[in-house]
Amino acid sequence: MAVYTDVTEVELTEFLRGYDVGGLLSYKGIAEGSENSNFLLHTEHAPFILTLYERRVEKADLPFFLGLMEHLAKKGISCPLPVRRRDGAVIGTLAGKPAALITFLEGMWLRRPNAANCREVGKALAALHVASADFTLSRPNALDIEGWRTLWAGSRERAHEVDPGLAAEVDRDFAILAAGWPAGLPAGVIHADLFPDNVFFLGNRLSGLIDFYFACNDLYAYDLAICINAWCFEKDGAFNLTKGRALLEGYLAARPLSDAEIEALPLLARGAALRFMLTRLYDWLTIPDGALVQKRDPTEYIRKLRFHRSIVSASEYGMP
Amino acid sequence: MAVYTDVTEVELTEFLRGYDVGGLLSYKGIAEGSENSNFLLHTEHAPFILTLYERRVEKADLPFFLGLMEHLAKKGISCPLPVRRRDGAVIGTLAGKPAALITFLEGMWLRRPNAANCREVGKALAALHVASADFTLSRPNALDIEGWRTLWAGSRERAHEVDPGLAAEVDRDFAILAAGWPAGLPAGVIHADLFPDNVFFLGNRLSGLIDFYFACNDLYAYDLAICINAWCFEKDGAFNLTKGRALLEGYLAARPLSDAEIEALPLLARGAALRFMLTRLYDWLTIPDGALVQKRDPTEYIRKLRFHRSIVSASEYGMP
Repeated sequence: MAVYTDVTEVELTEFLRGYDVGGLLSYKGIAEGSENSNFLLHTEHAPFILTLYERRVEKADLPFFLGLMEHLAKKGISCPLPVRRRDGAVIGTLAGKPAALITFLEGMWLRRPNAANCREVGKALAALHVASADFTLSRPNALDIEGWRTLWAGSRERAHEVDPGLAAEVDRDFAILAAGWPAGLPAGVIHADLFPDNVFFLGNRLSGLIDFYFACNDLYAYDLAICINAWCFEKDGAFNLTKGRALLEGYLAARPLSDAEIEALPLLARGAALRFMLTRLYDWLTIPDGALVQKRDPTEYIRKLRFHRSIVSASEYGMP
Repeated sequence: MAVYTDVTEVELTEFLRGYDVGGLLSYKGIAEGSENSNFLLHTEHAPFILTLYERRVEKADLPFFLGLMEHLAKKGISCPLPVRRRDGAVIGTLAGKPAALITFLEGMWLRRPNAANCREVGKALAALHVASADFTLSRPNALDIEGWRTLWAGSRERAHEVDPGLAAEVDRDFAILAAGWPAGLPAGVIHADLFPDNVFFLGNRLSGLIDFYFACNDLYAYDLAICINAWCFEKDGAFNLTKGRALLEGYLAARPLSDAEIEALPLLARGAALRFMLTRLYDWLTIPDGALVQKRDPTEYIRKLRFHRSIVSASEYGMP
């Protein structure tokens, strides 16, 4: 939630000469996106988002991210479309950083989504999984169970500062997840970060999905598990079964789940909760106070993790 | 440079029902403005800026600030126009804060202004002074010499942390400024904060002035002195005489300066440098690291203050 790199109007004007977007009218740094610097531009043709990729994004991954957005947009998924430069490229350089210009999606992210919104998100997630099936690039999930172990190694010693019993609990989670993590489930390109702030609505209509910078190849049902965590809990920590059912029904309407996927869902949801708990815990313990990076409280995901430990069947999430 | 207050799409949609601006399409918190929370909105009609007034702005001053913008816009000064609500008011309440919707000005602020830009700023400042002459509201300048004394009382003891000799130097400045501050110069509504980030350009054309939240009644020539400080020094601290001359010529083209104003300019410029040095010093010493408020280095203005002490005549600023 910050602009890490400022851009002068001189270098931005020069950068935009590489595109057929008309003259620059204005640009404002926007307080969204936790990893990159984002600007909302108005040109003579349209509004655009300009993203400068900062240190935490691997430059080698950009063709995957931007290619995926282009692939999905062409398949009818409402997501930002990277604008091609006159030379055909989608990645340029601005202020010494890799940079891309993408179309601006109107819409608002919902601070308090309801069950009908969850249904739309389920549908959109399944549509994304179907549409990405023939995308030819791939990217391994750096935040798989081995990636989680690395985060845990860097925060386990100080986990008690956040929650006294956490270290022992999470050690057990790792043992159970490593032993039971499902093999052979349907896999492909997943969004991997489809939180409410990455889904835009206009009224009750889902108008777009954004922020594909965690997208990778992994289990489709794991992506669904991430959404269950992100969309179906209330602020007080309670699981909302109505939202869970709506999300799952929405998903099933666009892509059926196999019995094995349904059976694996509680373990996948537990893993997904662990994954977000670990990145938040690691950031919480290692990023100095006052840094521009927004730190999110890990305890929200400690509670979710504890919830999933007690789940026996996907029906408890609302699976019809 | 932050969004202090988030707004939900539900409350924003409700807020906008009070205006005739069409449906809400999107809103983004923008990383501009150091005192308030600002959002760039797109509605079905146009883009707008939504400002939520935070703690540091007095609610009682809002009719002055917003009335001034409306007055100036109607006089042909390119500045944001507060949008009137259906009930005629320009100030509403959103997320518990006073809030206003204002028109969006296209244009970019210049990170590296040149002499031609300074000439346009001089012209625009004079035009503002002329256009505000018949504005009926008034607001005393809280940051007058007495206001500076309050800031100095709150930072003098620790001034040595920033610069070892500063306390004694500034004590002398206060004595000289208090003894010599001019009485009887032409006065009226001034912008009081016309820094480069508050002036938009489209190409070489000045397209608008923004951020009237320090506007007040004071000496016109003091406003000019603030601009000399803000526009005519290089990053290395050197005064750029060409820019000074251009700024002054631009101003004189739209409003003549009396001999007394010209004679007072070195002292006014010294006072203006002291004023910005003091607010920066105070913030530097009192705002905790990591707060959302951006702290600016006071040493830039310590150098400017020292420069003005040696100036004998306005001709040294480029006065023709």
